[in-house]
Amino acid sequence: MSKLTHLDDKGEARMVDVGAKSVTEREARAEGVIRMSPNTLSMIIEGEHPKGDVLAVARVAGIMAAKKTHDLIPLCHSLNLSSVKVELTPGDDNQSINVHARCKLSGQTGVEMEALTAVSVAALTLYDMCKAVDRGMIIDGIRLLEKKGGRSGHWSASESPS
Amino acid sequence: MSKLTHLDDKGEARMVDVGAKSVTEREARAEGVIRMSPNTLSMIIEGEHPKGDVLAVARVAGIMAAKKTHDLIPLCHSLNLSSVKVELTPGDDNQSINVHARCKLSGQTGVEMEALTAVSVAALTLYDMCKAVDRGMIIDGIRLLEKKGGRSGHWSASESPS
Amino acid sequence: MSKLTHLDDKGEARMVDVGAKSVTEREARAEGVIRMSPNTLSMIIEGEHPKGDVLAVARVAGIMAAKKTHDLIPLCHSLNLSSVKVELTPGDDNQSINVHARCKLSGQTGVEMEALTAVSVAALTLYDMCKAVDRGMIIDGIRLLEKKGGRSGHWSASESPS
Amino acid sequence: MSKLTHLDDKGEARMVDVGAKSVTEREARAEGVIRMSPNTLSMIIEGEHPKGDVLAVARVAGIMAAKKTHDLIPLCHSLNLSSVKVELTPGDDNQSINVHARCKLSGQTGVEMEALTAVSVAALTLYDMCKAVDRGMIIDGIRLLEKKGGRSGHWSASESPS
Amino acid sequence: MSKLTHLDDKGEARMVDVGAKSVTEREARAEGVIRMSPNTLSMIIEGEHPKGDVLAVARVAGIMAAKKTHDLIPLCHSLNLSSVKVELTPGDDNQSINVHARCKLSGQTGVEMEALTAVSVAALTLYDMCKAVDRGMIIDGIRLLEKKGGRSGHWSASESPS
Amino acid sequence: MSKLTHLDDKGEARMVDVGAKSVTEREARAEGVIRMSPNTLSMIIEGEHPKGDVLAVARVAGIMAAKKTHDLIPLCHSLNLSSVKVELTPGDDNQSINVHARCKLSGQTGVEMEALTAVSVAALTLYDMCKAVDRGMIIDGIRLLEKKGGRSGHWSASESPS
Repeated sequence: MSKLTHLDDKGEARMVDVGAKSVTEREARAEGVIRMSPNTLSMIIEGEHPKGDVLAVARVAGIMAAKKTHDLIPLCHSLNLSSVKVELTPGDDNQSINVHARCKLSGQTGVEMEALTAVSVAALTLYDMCKAVDRGMIIDGIRLLEKKGGRSGHWSASESPS
Repeated sequence: MSKLTHLDDKGEARMVDVGAKSVTEREARAEGVIRMSPNTLSMIIEGEHPKGDVLAVARVAGIMAAKKTHDLIPLCHSLNLSSVKVELTPGDDNQSINVHARCKLSGQTGVEMEALTAVSVAALTLYDMCKAVDRGMIIDGIRLLEKKGGRSGHWSASESPS
Repeated sequence: MSKLTHLDDKGEARMVDVGAKSVTEREARAEGVIRMSPNTLSMIIEGEHPKGDVLAVARVAGIMAAKKTHDLIPLCHSLNLSSVKVELTPGDDNQSINVHARCKLSGQTGVEMEALTAVSVAALTLYDMCKAVDRGMIIDGIRLLEKKGGRSGHWSASESPS
Repeated sequence: MSKLTHLDDKGEARMVDVGAKSVTEREARAEGVIRMSPNTLSMIIEGEHPKGDVLAVARVAGIMAAKKTHDLIPLCHSLNLSSVKVELTPGDDNQSINVHARCKLSGQTGVEMEALTAVSVAALTLYDMCKAVDRGMIIDGIRLLEKKGGRSGHWSASESPS
Repeated sequence: MSKLTHLDDKGEARMVDVGAKSVTEREARAEGVIRMSPNTLSMIIEGEHPKGDVLAVARVAGIMAAKKTHDLIPLCHSLNLSSVKVELTPGDDNQSINVHARCKLSGQTGVEMEALTAVSVAALTLYDMCKAVDRGMIIDGIRLLEKKGGRSGHWSASESPS
Repeated sequence: MSKLTHLDDKGEARMVDVGAKSVTEREARAEGVIRMSPNTLSMIIEGEHPKGDVLAVARVAGIMAAKKTHDLIPLCHSLNLSSVKVELTPGDDNQSINVHARCKLSGQTGVEMEALTAVSVAALTLYDMCKAVDRGMIIDGIRLLEKKGGRSGHWSASESPS
């Protein structure tokens, strides 16, 4: 049976030793969604064009958070991402914004947590900027979509959970 | 119509001026859930008892993240929380862990973002520690449950979204 | 003769004791300019409208940097700003962007350094985003414009230096 | 025509993908100057010798800031500098201090921003320590002097901007 | 019997609620020592005068670390210190440097951890700068000397532990 | 005679240039002890089993601090540790906890400071969580035990200092 690699035999937390892993190109993509009232969405965008800095601020927050992942997630290795991209797309339901992040690295550890952290913080930033008009927003479906590289190879979320 | 307070008249981002707000006791509670396979949950807990440091590490990560909120969310004010509590409870469905956070402050701004950030980072930390055995975990339902204090007074999420 | 308050009698650095200062409303405004080629400016704005995220990213960077001032400037006190505003305005010469920042606090220390840091980092961020097309940009004239509040009262830069 | 590489086709900010760049030795040098009254300069140095910790504190602040560059400039890659040197030299005009920084890296991205950030923060630190006696100090002429390494090769500022 | 206040009834870590504590003037002093070879000490100081930046750098590091305490110690409250002073004194034995720190705050929590952290990081910084010539240095006797303010009142270390 | 490598010829601090050093596997182990009353120790552990999160929180704090070393120690290079392990063991004297840390890196600089910082912060965290019941705790004997890799090769502390 698989074990939790972040715990040693006594169940104590440790930062896993990746020194023996090979340096390969790694990539991860994650997504999430923030649900809001149609009115809130229309305050952020008008037609297909943003009306102010809201989406730009959330993109920047997601990118910067990816770089801080090791400072937030206790057992994550610090690493030097070679690329981060955060995309925010209004949902077809006119009451949500989809958040997508892709991170890349040439290194010894995967970048799943960096992509998931970028998504989470971009969504939280949208919440922050809109909370004065809509406290009931909900952040849903934060998950890994795909990872490439490393010993465990390619992994892809089979299908959407909802 | 309400406006997005984090943007000025030109739609440009700013940190809202809270200098005229009164110092009051403020509190916010937020929640979220991380869904996983039953097997993953049983690796974390056995009966009602945790088998290792997993839950303790996630609690610490959530508490520390609450203190970093202003460094993650670009337009959040920095503030000195008077209390942070993060609770992790295995779900009745035996395939999830519920995350709950409560933050308090005596100050001029609400602490909703601090509670939501604590929930998000605690959930991400659980993902990190279990991802080697379960990449398909999903973080869902991150939302504000209640806030108290400040000019807008008491707010409570009417009912569970799912 | 005045002395450097950040040094003790032996010339050793210390964080000045502000415990006896009164809590008052404090405000500081600072400015600077980044000079660039006309071509670079036209890549950032078109007419009076920005063509992309460049100005928004620089505004966010300036705001976030104001919150980090105590972590950058060794002897600065950490404090909880009540307001930060960063404005970027294309220069009349069509080859520069003026950076202006205003910070506010209700507290025991002035916020000059926060305003100056916001200006500096917003300008550096503009440099970063445009450096691939214009390495010769120069950041000039970073200075305090005005401060209010505190024992030393109001101070205003008499006139523009250039 | 060159484009701003930090924006994608939609004008949205991203962290540029450097994964395909080769690892080479990179170096950047930057400079700036802080102008002050002759009296202020004489408080910092006496003859050619510093009277206290002022210059040492500013040097340390510049070095530490170089390491934080990716945390300040939103789209900068995090990286592991192999060397940082900050030099502070009283100006021949007896009313200024010149700030010079040199950063080195063996990696996939240039270190121009690290050198410029070191200069900026060292100058801001000097401002902080002397502001009680001289609020009118001005930071001028922050610019890149030279860069080496990477695909774009060697670049040198042609001449001083005065 | 006293209980560990940082754990709740289930033994789970939390950030203690200080919201009901009164705002008072608080102060803490801590000390420690780093033992080294006489040769190493003479490289740092000559007679009573430092030969280079070593002591200044360690002082700055201690002061900056005091401001970061809440980011290092998971359950510490973030707070805005009103004063930090770090003193480094060569020991009478000619083979040690004594480190002393004093922190002050007007607030709801004590500042013992800030003083202890300042001492620890100043000592670690001395180790770093001298390790190339003396890897056998030892940091000893880090302890609280005195605290004032707050409900528990004045506390003083009765005598030196030797 | 050896010189302090962190100072240049003028005695000014710099971050040493490690660009010419070879990339090798590096490892460092450090230790320290926190002395407390027997009653305090029994509050943390009962028999051989911890009663709550105390040891887990201190382990996490030590691991996270190792990753922040370059942000605490001014002249330390930032680096990407491949492994961190912190162990806390009750002392045979029933009135202390021994702290041990081991850090690994494949890189150009040693990781002694990372191991020493992990030990220091884990010990400070224990102090923090127990200080309400035992302010007289003392942190002693923080020292390097062993280092491997790099030009200077293997080094081992000859024997225990006390």
